[in-house]
Amino acid sequence: MSSYRTILNSVKDGLLSVEDALADLQKSSIEELGFATIDHDRVRRKGFSEVVYCAGKTPEQSATILKKLAERGDCNVLGTRAEAKVHELLLPDIPEAQYDPVSRAVYIYRGEQRREGAVLVAAAGTSDLPVAEEAALTAELMGNRVDRLYDVGVAGLHRLLRQLDRLYAARVIVVVAGMEGALTSVIAGLVNIPVIGVPTSVGYGAQLQGLAPLLGMLTTCAPGVSVVNIDNGFGAGYLASMINQLGERKCQ
Amino acid sequence: MSSYRTILNSVKDGLLSVEDALADLQKSSIEELGFATIDHDRVRRKGFSEVVYCAGKTPEQSATILKKLAERGDCNVLGTRAEAKVHELLLPDIPEAQYDPVSRAVYIYRGEQRREGAVLVAAAGTSDLPVAEEAALTAELMGNRVDRLYDVGVAGLHRLLRQLDRLYAARVIVVVAGMEGALTSVIAGLVNIPVIGVPTSVGYGAQLQGLAPLLGMLTTCAPGVSVVNIDNGFGAGYLASMINQLGERKCQ
Amino acid sequence: MSSYRTILNSVKDGLLSVEDALADLQKSSIEELGFATIDHDRVRRKGFSEVVYCAGKTPEQSATILKKLAERGDCNVLGTRAEAKVHELLLPDIPEAQYDPVSRAVYIYRGEQRREGAVLVAAAGTSDLPVAEEAALTAELMGNRVDRLYDVGVAGLHRLLRQLDRLYAARVIVVVAGMEGALTSVIAGLVNIPVIGVPTSVGYGAQLQGLAPLLGMLTTCAPGVSVVNIDNGFGAGYLASMINQLGERKCQ
Amino acid sequence: MSSYRTILNSVKDGLLSVEDALADLQKSSIEELGFATIDHDRVRRKGFSEVVYCAGKTPEQSATILKKLAERGDCNVLGTRAEAKVHELLLPDIPEAQYDPVSRAVYIYRGEQRREGAVLVAAAGTSDLPVAEEAALTAELMGNRVDRLYDVGVAGLHRLLRQLDRLYAARVIVVVAGMEGALTSVIAGLVNIPVIGVPTSVGYGAQLQGLAPLLGMLTTCAPGVSVVNIDNGFGAGYLASMINQLGERKCQ
Amino acid sequence: MSSYRTILNSVKDGLLSVEDALADLQKSSIEELGFATIDHDRVRRKGFSEVVYCAGKTPEQSATILKKLAERGDCNVLGTRAEAKVHELLLPDIPEAQYDPVSRAVYIYRGEQRREGAVLVAAAGTSDLPVAEEAALTAELMGNRVDRLYDVGVAGLHRLLRQLDRLYAARVIVVVAGMEGALTSVIAGLVNIPVIGVPTSVGYGAQLQGLAPLLGMLTTCAPGVSVVNIDNGFGAGYLASMINQLGERKCQ
Amino acid sequence: MSSYRTILNSVKDGLLSVEDALADLQKSSIEELGFATIDHDRVRRKGFSEVVYCAGKTPEQSATILKKLAERGDCNVLGTRAEAKVHELLLPDIPEAQYDPVSRAVYIYRGEQRREGAVLVAAAGTSDLPVAEEAALTAELMGNRVDRLYDVGVAGLHRLLRQLDRLYAARVIVVVAGMEGALTSVIAGLVNIPVIGVPTSVGYGAQLQGLAPLLGMLTTCAPGVSVVNIDNGFGAGYLASMINQLGERKCQ
Amino acid sequence: MSSYRTILNSVKDGLLSVEDALADLQKSSIEELGFATIDHDRVRRKGFSEVVYCAGKTPEQSATILKKLAERGDCNVLGTRAEAKVHELLLPDIPEAQYDPVSRAVYIYRGEQRREGAVLVAAAGTSDLPVAEEAALTAELMGNRVDRLYDVGVAGLHRLLRQLDRLYAARVIVVVAGMEGALTSVIAGLVNIPVIGVPTSVGYGAQLQGLAPLLGMLTTCAPGVSVVNIDNGFGAGYLASMINQLGERKCQ
Amino acid sequence: MSSYRTILNSVKDGLLSVEDALADLQKSSIEELGFATIDHDRVRRKGFSEVVYCAGKTPEQSATILKKLAERGDCNVLGTRAEAKVHELLLPDIPEAQYDPVSRAVYIYRGEQRREGAVLVAAAGTSDLPVAEEAALTAELMGNRVDRLYDVGVAGLHRLLRQLDRLYAARVIVVVAGMEGALTSVIAGLVNIPVIGVPTSVGYGAQLQGLAPLLGMLTTCAPGVSVVNIDNGFGAGYLASMINQLGERKCQ
Repeated sequence: MSSYRTILNSVKDGLLSVEDALADLQKSSIEELGFATIDHDRVRRKGFSEVVYCAGKTPEQSATILKKLAERGDCNVLGTRAEAKVHELLLPDIPEAQYDPVSRAVYIYRGEQRREGAVLVAAAGTSDLPVAEEAALTAELMGNRVDRLYDVGVAGLHRLLRQLDRLYAARVIVVVAGMEGALTSVIAGLVNIPVIGVPTSVGYGAQLQGLAPLLGMLTTCAPGVSVVNIDNGFGAGYLASMINQLGERKCQ
Repeated sequence: MSSYRTILNSVKDGLLSVEDALADLQKSSIEELGFATIDHDRVRRKGFSEVVYCAGKTPEQSATILKKLAERGDCNVLGTRAEAKVHELLLPDIPEAQYDPVSRAVYIYRGEQRREGAVLVAAAGTSDLPVAEEAALTAELMGNRVDRLYDVGVAGLHRLLRQLDRLYAARVIVVVAGMEGALTSVIAGLVNIPVIGVPTSVGYGAQLQGLAPLLGMLTTCAPGVSVVNIDNGFGAGYLASMINQLGERKCQ
Repeated sequence: MSSYRTILNSVKDGLLSVEDALADLQKSSIEELGFATIDHDRVRRKGFSEVVYCAGKTPEQSATILKKLAERGDCNVLGTRAEAKVHELLLPDIPEAQYDPVSRAVYIYRGEQRREGAVLVAAAGTSDLPVAEEAALTAELMGNRVDRLYDVGVAGLHRLLRQLDRLYAARVIVVVAGMEGALTSVIAGLVNIPVIGVPTSVGYGAQLQGLAPLLGMLTTCAPGVSVVNIDNGFGAGYLASMINQLGERKCQ
Repeated sequence: MSSYRTILNSVKDGLLSVEDALADLQKSSIEELGFATIDHDRVRRKGFSEVVYCAGKTPEQSATILKKLAERGDCNVLGTRAEAKVHELLLPDIPEAQYDPVSRAVYIYRGEQRREGAVLVAAAGTSDLPVAEEAALTAELMGNRVDRLYDVGVAGLHRLLRQLDRLYAARVIVVVAGMEGALTSVIAGLVNIPVIGVPTSVGYGAQLQGLAPLLGMLTTCAPGVSVVNIDNGFGAGYLASMINQLGERKCQ
Repeated sequence: MSSYRTILNSVKDGLLSVEDALADLQKSSIEELGFATIDHDRVRRKGFSEVVYCAGKTPEQSATILKKLAERGDCNVLGTRAEAKVHELLLPDIPEAQYDPVSRAVYIYRGEQRREGAVLVAAAGTSDLPVAEEAALTAELMGNRVDRLYDVGVAGLHRLLRQLDRLYAARVIVVVAGMEGALTSVIAGLVNIPVIGVPTSVGYGAQLQGLAPLLGMLTTCAPGVSVVNIDNGFGAGYLASMINQLGERKCQ
Repeated sequence: MSSYRTILNSVKDGLLSVEDALADLQKSSIEELGFATIDHDRVRRKGFSEVVYCAGKTPEQSATILKKLAERGDCNVLGTRAEAKVHELLLPDIPEAQYDPVSRAVYIYRGEQRREGAVLVAAAGTSDLPVAEEAALTAELMGNRVDRLYDVGVAGLHRLLRQLDRLYAARVIVVVAGMEGALTSVIAGLVNIPVIGVPTSVGYGAQLQGLAPLLGMLTTCAPGVSVVNIDNGFGAGYLASMINQLGERKCQ
Repeated sequence: MSSYRTILNSVKDGLLSVEDALADLQKSSIEELGFATIDHDRVRRKGFSEVVYCAGKTPEQSATILKKLAERGDCNVLGTRAEAKVHELLLPDIPEAQYDPVSRAVYIYRGEQRREGAVLVAAAGTSDLPVAEEAALTAELMGNRVDRLYDVGVAGLHRLLRQLDRLYAARVIVVVAGMEGALTSVIAGLVNIPVIGVPTSVGYGAQLQGLAPLLGMLTTCAPGVSVVNIDNGFGAGYLASMINQLGERKCQ
Repeated sequence: MSSYRTILNSVKDGLLSVEDALADLQKSSIEELGFATIDHDRVRRKGFSEVVYCAGKTPEQSATILKKLAERGDCNVLGTRAEAKVHELLLPDIPEAQYDPVSRAVYIYRGEQRREGAVLVAAAGTSDLPVAEEAALTAELMGNRVDRLYDVGVAGLHRLLRQLDRLYAARVIVVVAGMEGALTSVIAGLVNIPVIGVPTSVGYGAQLQGLAPLLGMLTTCAPGVSVVNIDNGFGAGYLASMINQLGERKCQ
């Protein structure tokens, strides 16, 4: 979209016909697979290639899309909520593809892209780890240094308070919590940086598959908190990376 | 019901006794199977035979009803949400019966009934395809030309904007979208024809099995939108056909 | 958007500079009021000028926007959910502005634009009239012939059945119903044309401000039904007009 | 409880010591199984033995309770939502025990107890049959004549209207309906007898596992309707029997 | 509808032309007021004239409809949820019209129509009285003897237990309860007659305007209970009368 | 109920006729006011006289009931959610009646009944004070020493941590919190005594009138917490008193 | 936290360096397992070791944590919602570990710690036993005498009333109830001690997986009731123990 | 908390007694007003003084707290959701206090603190302005340059697309939208910076006071989005400032 001016200039200079200009605007950044329309332009627009949400797609569809993304550039590539089958299908063509069974992520990691600031991922309990790992892995794939602080729920507040230094050392904090999600409010009350709350569906009954901590995080009394969808570790890791890298640009 | 006058006239002219008139009103268009009461009158009333919702019925029940419908007329016949088993049971008697595993539809297609106007079925993501295909197939079975525009969600808006010509060429648009369903609003803001939103249950957490896009489509800021039930591709395809064929009448 | 090609051609022919082309694309169809950005292009895009939702705006804001819309073209103009105050503020400048206290609509009606087909607006009970009138008035302002069929709820089914002729005479039916909203299913079972359900908030307790009929209409067993938001008479009237006028174009 | 006076009289007459009176009040009508406290008094109090809700109990627990109930009296005995396993466990001891796989009811039927009035069980669709059969079977076991009227949903209203005579012949009507449940309102508008609505979980999406018809039936515009829990065929059959037999007393 | 046969016979005998027959079917029992379609046939069909739900209607509309109903027959007439204004507007024409400020009912009571059986209306707390009185008044107007048992909530169980005789003397019981509505289960466990639960919106917080007792009554462990809408005293009184008078017919 | 044995003994000894015994069981502890059935027995059963929930009652009804309770014993008397009007109506007869406008409680306080243990009432924010004061006042009226710890929400954790001594000094803690209610989890993680959570409706949007902290408190990760209804300061104060006084008995 | 003063004194006396003091504050009571941060301090703070919620953890993770807890002290140890696999993994190292398949609890029981007062666990129905047993077992493990009163739901009130003595003999009562949960209100109305309500997910339809009894218990008309999460037998047993042992201290 | 080391060092050096150290830790940063506990430490911890949420407080309470905050430092001070009355009470003491009736904010603005990066606040419609202005004003008070882009909802997509330059010029974007809130997804799909969604309660019916856009924003298909509470303009502005100023520190 930002290249409209370039194309208009080419047209003006006679370097590009009107018909070609129209075609150009549409063609280069998009690949049609029939069942999917790959948005290769996203690397340019968002600084990271399209991330494939594998749930609801067949393993074959997921693997095909991931392969196309991997072939196109040399950025890292990520598929979330993937069965191990996706990884198996990918391996023959992309031997460096990896799979993390905890977060159910399949990914291709290319090159060291550590940054100055760090993303801290805090998790309230052991059962929250799959979501926390999805967040941590996403942030790492996007080139961030990640600090993991797990099982520090508020029922044993001293577990958290003895780690204040790590909280203070981060540039942005992702808080992953199920049950009632109070950890988000407590951490946000202690620091002066953005806190991204990720409610998880860990719990039962009135936890309502994550609605309890979702509502709790949205209505927190501590300022500086925003929230992503229940169990959306990917979204939190992505946003944390975006905040951590504000002004920089990755993987040209 | 519209034939009350005819029957009254026959009674007046002595061609029909009162008792027979009463019986006539009830009998001809209905077939009793014990577990089902087939409404053969629906072809006349609605322009398409009764569509069988196979979920919650045994494959045997579904197959029996479909067979009865197929025997009675020469319209196309459709069963939705069917297991492959229904198709298998149907094949010995109706060899031309077909099954589409994506949309889980079993159907009998008889004759070319293409129309002028076209129904456009747009889907936001690959995971929405089962619902989109149910809509597309239903519209095709009811004699419409269908244009499929898949994986054009708003996260990559240019994928949609480069297809404006196809949007403008339709007479009615079905928009199938999960997640937050924003595609419906965006498309409805661009065109001047009816848009039928189909929220899907694709997503997780606060998506609430489709409630998020359902509420979103209902409260859209773009006029010209109406909504059918979550995942109800059939209902959208049926209504789209009805709108596309307003004033015409199919399969006498 | 469809005029991109025109502008590109002008640029190519040297009739338009690149800078001017960019400005042109943005300027002509939009008017900035500070608190509002009027979309004058909507008449061209949607066949009817922007409709002003007056709730949540000050009467002064509503009246200013309506005035701007009225000055720009000679289409009919509509403001919904307006206090009488909006009308009073409008009258000095637009003496032909009218106000309907039942539907709380303020509008400017210019010229006879009757069509062939008719929109039928059916309402289940007397308490549903404000919503039904909003639908009927909207459809009339958009140039449709409207037939009103009120207080025909299913608790007294014969009130409806004796009016079958009027149901059959319509091209599209808007059904406005509160309580449980069963009227929509019953009417849709009787006709072969699109039915637009408008659930209303009439009722109490488990009616949940309209959620009961909303859910009911969405899950109707009768095909050919789609639904708009609770109490959204405007949306239903607008869509009914769109369906009734498919292929035609109003108010160039 | 009503026998307090008797016991008080016995105490007064010296026929019963105070300690024994206290014991008597508690003992005779109750049987302790450890995991269950059988209420044998219910036959006297409610006219039918305790009905065993088998879901959530082990088949062994269910079978044991049913056996105890069968041994105690000569009333009919009923277990609802039972796996076939319960029946198998029961057969060696109670060979006359029967099992109905549609309604998942296990029961022991002893003797002909037909009544004058009839309970009509109407069901909207074939998928509603398991619930409808639970209602019908319960009413039959409690000694009522039951008329079944199935697959008469409002999408084909004439299927119902041609059966008005059967509606008029009943003393109480149970209406079993999923989807939006409009059948309840339509039937209640046609008759002058109590109508018991049973919403079912048949449907998907906005049907919300039966909440849509539940809310619809509760907010019906037709008087004379009351509602039982979603899928609660047993409750409806039980209440229908109670209404049908008002003033009579069964199985002394 | 039951008079179809009569009309058909008249047509057959030449006593009625087809056109007149059609008109007859529609006209006699219905009166058009523009904003309302009065269903005078309801006395014949349901044994009681149409009851006017005054909420959402203007007092003038309510009074007009009530007047029309009063003029037509000599049955009792009832308007629910009415402001005192409706009564004032009615008085000049119908001086015997009465108004009950507790239940907000306006009514015209004509003649003593006491029955054998009694309807018991039990209310859990003083705050539930408006709903309880609406139920009691409705049942009285429909010719039933009503016994009122108020403020007997389960927090003081002995208040109820000392009144068992009155429970046993009724033919049908209406239980009106807010808070958690447990009174319904307790009473239904003690008696052998139909119990109609009316949840009320009395309470706050998690009572959710009556949803708590509504859900509670629907899921009661005691058989023989059905439920009407929250605060729907009228519906419960109406149904109780219907059950109490099964087989009888009122006000020919 | 526990006096059944006494009455049985009197009957046995001929000191009491059967009829009188029955009457006695019912009469002494209950006073009928028509609109209310006062449970004077509650002092004996529950250790505190019936508390009057004044919302939904007329001020006259509330004042009458409070007067009756005050006349009967010499316990403290409490009415909650009362308008000042109730107090005014009470003053002429009960000059020592007091009114607290913050908690909207009207009460009669008779005598010093301080206890050993203390009830701590902690409130997260200033807006939670009306509920916190209702809890504190209730506990004081029931004879407890109350320590108030207000405005110590988790957004500024040190406000709470510097008060650990007061937390440790209590026997039972009531935590009153709106927004997301995280204070309950944090406090329960720090102490070894029962914590009663009172969610309040303080907040907006996703706070859902108190549902957010209600769900949060119910799903807390800290053991030792139980919850009362939203804004139910009375219930929490009452229960806190019960726990604080376990084994003791007040106001014989 | 309460040992801050001790550490400060050691620092002041030169017995402890500042760096060591900081380390000490954090280290002793916490054990890092990578996936979990064990809070060994909880025995001191809460009087019972950390209880392991095994759902959402792998059996290996659960077993490891339980082993660490067992090794550290000689308190009883408890894991809830555990598969039998956890027990199997634990047995080689901790042969005295036990498993209860009804409540799915794995536990290590060391020594007789009976108390004076008793915890009564009442359950409404047989299907509620898994939750009731979790409560009972938890209370027993924490050293309480537990009385079990099962299958005493209000549909047969006399089953409860004949057990009043057992109700009166308890110091605190846990009421476990599914369906509508009315048992909680009834019991709380009869006794003068704290009642902890545990709603269960037993039921279907409008029971909404336990929301119906949850809302009912929260809005009970009987004072002295508080509520824990749906199916949270552990939480109720833990709190009941805390109340029963107020002022005492267990397992130093 | 981070000053623990300093205090420990002072104690070690004998400069501070243990008792004084304990007092110091608690006293300096907290001011007790009885009804409130002011957290003066927040400027140091969070970079901005405590913001007063005035809803639910009396105007007198709000004004007192604001005055205390203003006296203590020379930072800007902010009170949200304030009546004009708060401003009036503040003016005599703090004449430079200002009030904005659109966002209902009362504030004290001290000195120019413009930053490099800009916060863009985009609003979908005119009715969303109160929330958008609360966000914009908060960000300005915290020292950010704010760009306002109002009334650019997706129903007229070109209104937004012509402003892409302003989107690209921001460092962080706040998107305020009611109805279905689709603007958030569309903007997030176009940019490569953090987007904070603020759902508003603008709309009706299925908009459910903001739940529809809340759910929609949480489930957006565009990465880089997080969400704050419905109508929480303050929270979004605060977080946007935090992100915009990452690494900087304001108002020492």
